[in-house]
Amino acid sequence: MALDDTLRKKLIASVEHGFAEQIAYTQDLIRLQSVRGDEFIIQDRVFNELRNRGYAMERFDMDRGAIERHPGGSPFSDDHSRAPIVVGTHRPRDEAGRSLILQAHVDVVPPGPESLWTHPPFEPVIEGDWLYGRGGADMKAGHAANLYALDALRRIGLQPAATVYIQSVVEEESTGNGALMTHLRGYKADAVLIPEPEDEKLVRANVGVVWFQVEVRGLPVHVREMGTGANAIDAAYRIIGELRILEAEWNARKAGRPNFENEEHPINLNVGKIEGGDWESSVPAWCRIGCRVSIYPGVSAKEAAAEIEQRIAKFAREDSFLSNIPPLVTFHGFHTEGYELPPGSEAEKVLADAHLGATGKKLESFMTAGYLDTRVYALYDKIPALCYGPYSQNIHGFDERVSIASLKRITTAMTLFIVEWCGVELATPE
Amino acid sequence: MALDDTLRKKLIASVEHGFAEQIAYTQDLIRLQSVRGDEFIIQDRVFNELRNRGYAMERFDMDRGAIERHPGGSPFSDDHSRAPIVVGTHRPRDEAGRSLILQAHVDVVPPGPESLWTHPPFEPVIEGDWLYGRGGADMKAGHAANLYALDALRRIGLQPAATVYIQSVVEEESTGNGALMTHLRGYKADAVLIPEPEDEKLVRANVGVVWFQVEVRGLPVHVREMGTGANAIDAAYRIIGELRILEAEWNARKAGRPNFENEEHPINLNVGKIEGGDWESSVPAWCRIGCRVSIYPGVSAKEAAAEIEQRIAKFAREDSFLSNIPPLVTFHGFHTEGYELPPGSEAEKVLADAHLGATGKKLESFMTAGYLDTRVYALYDKIPALCYGPYSQNIHGFDERVSIASLKRITTAMTLFIVEWCGVELATPE
Repeated sequence: MALDDTLRKKLIASVEHGFAEQIAYTQDLIRLQSVRGDEFIIQDRVFNELRNRGYAMERFDMDRGAIERHPGGSPFSDDHSRAPIVVGTHRPRDEAGRSLILQAHVDVVPPGPESLWTHPPFEPVIEGDWLYGRGGADMKAGHAANLYALDALRRIGLQPAATVYIQSVVEEESTGNGALMTHLRGYKADAVLIPEPEDEKLVRANVGVVWFQVEVRGLPVHVREMGTGANAIDAAYRIIGELRILEAEWNARKAGRPNFENEEHPINLNVGKIEGGDWESSVPAWCRIGCRVSIYPGVSAKEAAAEIEQRIAKFAREDSFLSNIPPLVTFHGFHTEGYELPPGSEAEKVLADAHLGATGKKLESFMTAGYLDTRVYALYDKIPALCYGPYSQNIHGFDERVSIASLKRITTAMTLFIVEWCGVELATPE
Repeated sequence: MALDDTLRKKLIASVEHGFAEQIAYTQDLIRLQSVRGDEFIIQDRVFNELRNRGYAMERFDMDRGAIERHPGGSPFSDDHSRAPIVVGTHRPRDEAGRSLILQAHVDVVPPGPESLWTHPPFEPVIEGDWLYGRGGADMKAGHAANLYALDALRRIGLQPAATVYIQSVVEEESTGNGALMTHLRGYKADAVLIPEPEDEKLVRANVGVVWFQVEVRGLPVHVREMGTGANAIDAAYRIIGELRILEAEWNARKAGRPNFENEEHPINLNVGKIEGGDWESSVPAWCRIGCRVSIYPGVSAKEAAAEIEQRIAKFAREDSFLSNIPPLVTFHGFHTEGYELPPGSEAEKVLADAHLGATGKKLESFMTAGYLDTRVYALYDKIPALCYGPYSQNIHGFDERVSIASLKRITTAMTLFIVEWCGVELATPE
């Protein structure tokens, strides 16, 4: 069902009308530095923004026991965020349409050395079409778009004719436990839309992600006796070498997986952190590496973790140094399975129409090689889980930026999608 | 001139007599945790111990300008110790003999993870013949021996018939600037003895040491775009590989160096520290390695540093990632030249006699592949610089320990050496 052309034009104009305010709000969100564990203030801001618009509010903590018992839960560590999850609920007068979850995360990855940024990472500078800032693209732009897509309806006196949950979560960059917690809390709808920065495409398939740490310990000696000591940094690099072999094997397993076999390198192993040794003149006695690896949909994190553990244990047994004190492998973050969005759902069709209406282009879909919260809804709610959002550059990198023109198109498409998916009724007078 | 046998026996008995107190004092020194920068309290204790014995005291700071202008000075960094240097001076009534410097350092290397120690690193536990503890062997045992060798004379009513400077320095484990500062201050004598843990041997030759840091910076990206980003941890490892080639070349240059050509691997490059990356799911944007390499006597630190810089620069130019942002090489610690002790000096002969008198064995000499403060006296004072001390195990490692029996033999040998080198006179009444 194509949208009435008059209504479509009114909606486009309404998004346009609120867009300056939407950008200003997105900039506010960027200013609220919200690296892992520091999302308290931004969640308060989000809570107030939603409450001021009249949504029914709930705010709740992670249930560690429930998360760790669930197959999609990731292990907790000392770094795990304690910030709350915030959900605002729109309830229609008449539950006539299809319900919807609009989800976004507020946590951002660390900015890294500030000197490598053109502008300070948490200053939301605009240059040309780009809005810069850590977490701007990933995903405060999308976070604000959830709110402003609904605002666009209100501005012209309308509201969704179905329940809409607006969910603001944490831990998307490290465990995925925030999204899982909304599921465990009982939130459920007929579809979910998460506006991650996906270059105006729909995610068709998505890998699972496993984080693990390998700690090597050895026998340090004075460097004058280097031959008799064991260098833990060198040993850690030997383990990295073995993990690269495992990565190649996992990539070779792409054969027969339609969403992956045409990708050159669908499985990425990233050694993201390393730390070792205490003193230049002491042979290093310890070294820790923090790794992240992706897994195909259908492979459980448990299976992948077991294979990683066994491979490192086998390698260590055959290594003259590592066999003395076997390396310690711990799983301290993402422990999640990937998903695939089966083509042909009604939700996808509605989004494709909305995308065409907003951009004039056909909606493309693709495979992404990073974790996405959509997996919770796809795997455990078994509902159409749509991940679709604006153009961006350098997410997780320096000078992360989101395209402002793209953000407007996406917000428009989201508005059209909501209208078509949920239906509309006259807005409740405030 | 062999020592009078009656006096020799009295001296041996006197060392024995004071030995329990000497061990207790050594244990006190171990308890005073004195890693780099934290040597204030231990230097106060040393000051008081020397002053209480009636030595003329001086306490002074590093003269950064003078050190950095001197060819044997190492660069200062933020980690450089600000603790004072302490010197106690014995002045005889009659300056009849040869003057002597007895030197020792109080700084110790970091203990590393405490869980890898059998006993806590700063608890001076005795088990059998071993006294355990970080810095016990290297070199609080020798530090105490300097004092107790002189005490052994006093106990029988004697004192050296020449000036003796008892010097307590810092920065031996990181720059060698403490010893250099005593030289710059003007302290000078006819010989120096430093009782480092040298397994009851005399150091014949000693390498120079250069510390350097290599910092790699890259362009981090989300791990989903790993191919387009550059992994700084991998790049650091490529640099380590190139440095290993340089190390092999330097080892090959041992040919024609009598004190080195029979050593299998005289030049050691140690990658002692590594740190890189901020987040498991971000391709690491930076990585720093802290290295230590040894150089042959006669090679200046400046020449070595230039060769390291040029080699890394050349390697980086040919590396597709590193050529974008060349790695930064900085020299932040040891920048010191090695030395050789020419055989045949009178000081060596006196020490050999003393060693024979204390141990019944011929004094052996050897090359050590680690930095020694003796280089200051050998290179810049051009005096016989004797480095000779007790048996030890695992210095710079876990469960560092010094042999108590060996320490007694060494203290005795030092006492006999002082008597023979300086001559003796009746002790000044207190």
